Amino acid sequence: MFRGWYILNPMENFNSSERIPPDLRKILTPERVLSFKAEAAGIQLLYATERVDKPILQELFKLAEQREVVRQMRSMQAGERVNVSENRPALHTAMRDLFEDHPRSPATQEAVTLAQKEIDKLRLFLSQPSSFTTLIQIGIGGSSLGPEAIYLGLEAYGIPGRKAYFLSNVDPDEATRVLNQVDLAKTLIVVVSKSGTTLETLTNEARIRDELRKAGLDPKNHIVAVTGKGSPMDNRTLYKESFYIWDYIGGRYSVTSMVGGVLLGFILGMDRFLEFLKGAYLMDQVALQEGPQQNLPLLGALLGIWNRNFLKCPTVAVIPYSQALARFPAHLQQLDMESNGKHVDKEGNQVTFETGPILWGEPGTNGQHSFFQLLHQGTSVVPVELIGFVESQYGKDLQVEGSYSQEKLLANLFAQAIAFAQGQKSSNPNQEFVGNRPSHILLARKLDPMTLGSLLAYYEHKVAFQGFLWNINSFDQEGVQLGKKLATEMVKTFSEIREGRQASYPLGEAFLSHII
Amino acid sequence: MFRGWYILNPMENFNSSERIPPDLRKILTPERVLSFKAEAAGIQLLYATERVDKPILQELFKLAEQREVVRQMRSMQAGERVNVSENRPALHTAMRDLFEDHPRSPATQEAVTLAQKEIDKLRLFLSQPSSFTTLIQIGIGGSSLGPEAIYLGLEAYGIPGRKAYFLSNVDPDEATRVLNQVDLAKTLIVVVSKSGTTLETLTNEARIRDELRKAGLDPKNHIVAVTGKGSPMDNRTLYKESFYIWDYIGGRYSVTSMVGGVLLGFILGMDRFLEFLKGAYLMDQVALQEGPQQNLPLLGALLGIWNRNFLKCPTVAVIPYSQALARFPAHLQQLDMESNGKHVDKEGNQVTFETGPILWGEPGTNGQHSFFQLLHQGTSVVPVELIGFVESQYGKDLQVEGSYSQEKLLANLFAQAIAFAQGQKSSNPNQEFVGNRPSHILLARKLDPMTLGSLLAYYEHKVAFQGFLWNINSFDQEGVQLGKKLATEMVKTFSEIREGRQASYPLGEAFLSHII
Repeated sequence: MFRGWYILNPMENFNSSERIPPDLRKILTPERVLSFKAEAAGIQLLYATERVDKPILQELFKLAEQREVVRQMRSMQAGERVNVSENRPALHTAMRDLFEDHPRSPATQEAVTLAQKEIDKLRLFLSQPSSFTTLIQIGIGGSSLGPEAIYLGLEAYGIPGRKAYFLSNVDPDEATRVLNQVDLAKTLIVVVSKSGTTLETLTNEARIRDELRKAGLDPKNHIVAVTGKGSPMDNRTLYKESFYIWDYIGGRYSVTSMVGGVLLGFILGMDRFLEFLKGAYLMDQVALQEGPQQNLPLLGALLGIWNRNFLKCPTVAVIPYSQALARFPAHLQQLDMESNGKHVDKEGNQVTFETGPILWGEPGTNGQHSFFQLLHQGTSVVPVELIGFVESQYGKDLQVEGSYSQEKLLANLFAQAIAFAQGQKSSNPNQEFVGNRPSHILLARKLDPMTLGSLLAYYEHKVAFQGFLWNINSFDQEGVQLGKKLATEMVKTFSEIREGRQASYPLGEAFLSHII
Repeated sequence: MFRGWYILNPMENFNSSERIPPDLRKILTPERVLSFKAEAAGIQLLYATERVDKPILQELFKLAEQREVVRQMRSMQAGERVNVSENRPALHTAMRDLFEDHPRSPATQEAVTLAQKEIDKLRLFLSQPSSFTTLIQIGIGGSSLGPEAIYLGLEAYGIPGRKAYFLSNVDPDEATRVLNQVDLAKTLIVVVSKSGTTLETLTNEARIRDELRKAGLDPKNHIVAVTGKGSPMDNRTLYKESFYIWDYIGGRYSVTSMVGGVLLGFILGMDRFLEFLKGAYLMDQVALQEGPQQNLPLLGALLGIWNRNFLKCPTVAVIPYSQALARFPAHLQQLDMESNGKHVDKEGNQVTFETGPILWGEPGTNGQHSFFQLLHQGTSVVPVELIGFVESQYGKDLQVEGSYSQEKLLANLFAQAIAFAQGQKSSNPNQEFVGNRPSHILLARKLDPMTLGSLLAYYEHKVAFQGFLWNINSFDQEGVQLGKKLATEMVKTFSEIREGRQASYPLGEAFLSHII
């Protein structure tokens, strides 16, 4: 039973005097730093610099209990139809439930069996001798952002000599640019579309097929499909191989399915791809823990809710202190904003509170030399999630002026959390920092396949928990449909004008008059 | 004379009934699309989908007049000390004032003469025979984001075989990754730091010098400096050449100085680099126009102020429908947020209104398959700036299902503007789009050097105008200092702990206890 009243009035029960958000300038002590922490699956969550205290945390834990969010997580992982608008499960966790024997629901068991079959198929496919050194992944949205983020994150662990490119945009220059950089004879192309009908993807596939033929190569020897069984792309006469995904795998939750799998298996080898899946699996188990203090994604979700609904912050910045994670914020941007950028609840009621925040970010320390000015002294408060690692990936480092680069990197990360919290008084108003700005830190030993798997799943579940708390459906994306419909109208208007016919869409014609 | 009262109470004069923002769902007609437009320096600004009408525009124009913003722009370009806190001019426009004879202030004339000297030096440098095919730009913030954005934007016009890499982050893995990709024997390294003391930059330079020596190469034959005259880096015994910048060139406004110049001259050749400067110069002239309808950056600034201060939108998304502009939003993020993320006005008073918004973005159509869900159906309203081009850069395109890719790309851009404005009613609440969400379009013929120069300067001046309107100093960045100071403390704490000494900073020690 959901208790909708609670979340429909999120400020309720939070107005009494002991619920006033604490002032970080007054409370940040070494003791607090040591005690406001949680740890699971190799990731520490340090949240001494969030504007919460024990009573507020208790209130947030109570909210989680009342919303029965761990039960909802169990339902999700058991294959219940949590995607209510499309009447489907969301079973991305089954893609990595490959490591232990344990009781499963029939739906989950079936999904796990199918996933294992694809893994086996992939292992066989990759074990065949080939001259491929390069891979082009053609796909957009979830078929590109997550896979690219993980590829860049783990490039350091790649099989030497292998490299991947990504082709997403319908922008014809992008295809030209990718084609200029590769030797098609040595290139494996992975075309990813669950429906087999994505406009951008099919357009880019057509372009690549054209270029392969021009180069005297047979597309069928170079292109594999990742698609739904029975989709227009599930056609062995056109593709070297077909790998399957299912309607219970949402695009933005698909990295651990074959959407990311073919690419990551090719680049990293199967063993490291499986380590990555193992990391995600471990965090899936953490997400089922009842105690919010043990359940890292739930704790992260509650801190986010506090910042969004109670401290009224419309955005959140994710700043990885690791250049390898340069595109991880872009993946999280889709994951979070497409999942929770919703204005109706699961029953179709207009929500009366704010849902998903605007998520954005760039790596640190780079961001410090860019937009951090606004984070410290702007009029908008931006909660910041800092991600850091104790060790570098390559282990190559140099001591300059008495410290290693990795130390400088981490020193900056911690310094920013302290600066946001403490601020600084000054007689020069220009050098005054208000402080009391919330942040937290996700800290792990090293950015390796297992850790990145855990980190990915941490965010997947954090987003899902926030959806459960808000009683919204985090697994559909109706908001992308209107643009598609109108784009079809506009494409038609282009053709009509190009062919000298009467335009059937006056508003479209008016816009096109500016270009013709 | 500034009339501070006006901007200190930005809602004043806007409360009467005729100032109610119009409802885009009701007013978007072909006629409006045709008439709400402005054009200058090759760029069209189409703003029929902003929530303004003629009376509101008049009110905004009056605000611009009362704040004497065009006079302030003239002062800036004439070299007056508009950066009041640092008592310096902001003379980035002088870097490209190379194309016409016209009267100049003595300060500007001197800056132009110095800029021309660097251009001549660069031309000579690049005309000398060399075996360099690759360039690594070492720099952070403005020494990296702008140059990289423009490099990627104009890669299509590059001298064949030449390629650039960027090394910004103190993350040691980033240096390893770049070094793994280049042949140092053929690599020119450009180290950029105005002060000659930037921590990240010096650390990366030390690493590269180390690697050059290990490879048996003399660093002095490979490394050039871009720095302030007399800085620690202005040392001809260490560098092959020194190019100069001056204290009146802020990092985020430095792309058209030698900060971007050495890189862009090397990649594009001098002629195309000068076309790029010419484009910026043309927009500089536009920014001096008195009529806001002709003054494109001023018009853009006023629309932004309307969305920020009157419609209360805390963020703005910039979506280029061009994959070549993939990093342009990251540059604009620094430009805008570091310039206008301020909480005190020029006189040191706490502002009583919102200043610079949070700027973020990714290319379209990619974004449509990601965060556009929130833009259409989320609870936060995000004003969107869509950037498009009529022609592709390479001119290679394929007709698929009756339309070219470039047509599909533009069709999507226009469709999104319409969808944001019109929304869609539906009996299924999940498929309802509220609409009435503001956006505008920047449209140009083709993304070429001159156009990108204009676009860059458009945003530089838009940001400056907003600073003038808010009476804040858009040219300093005191907000980055506290983090630097605390990072120094943390680095020291690292060393103390590594060397088994007593830590002198207990809060730092507490954070470091999580990693040791």
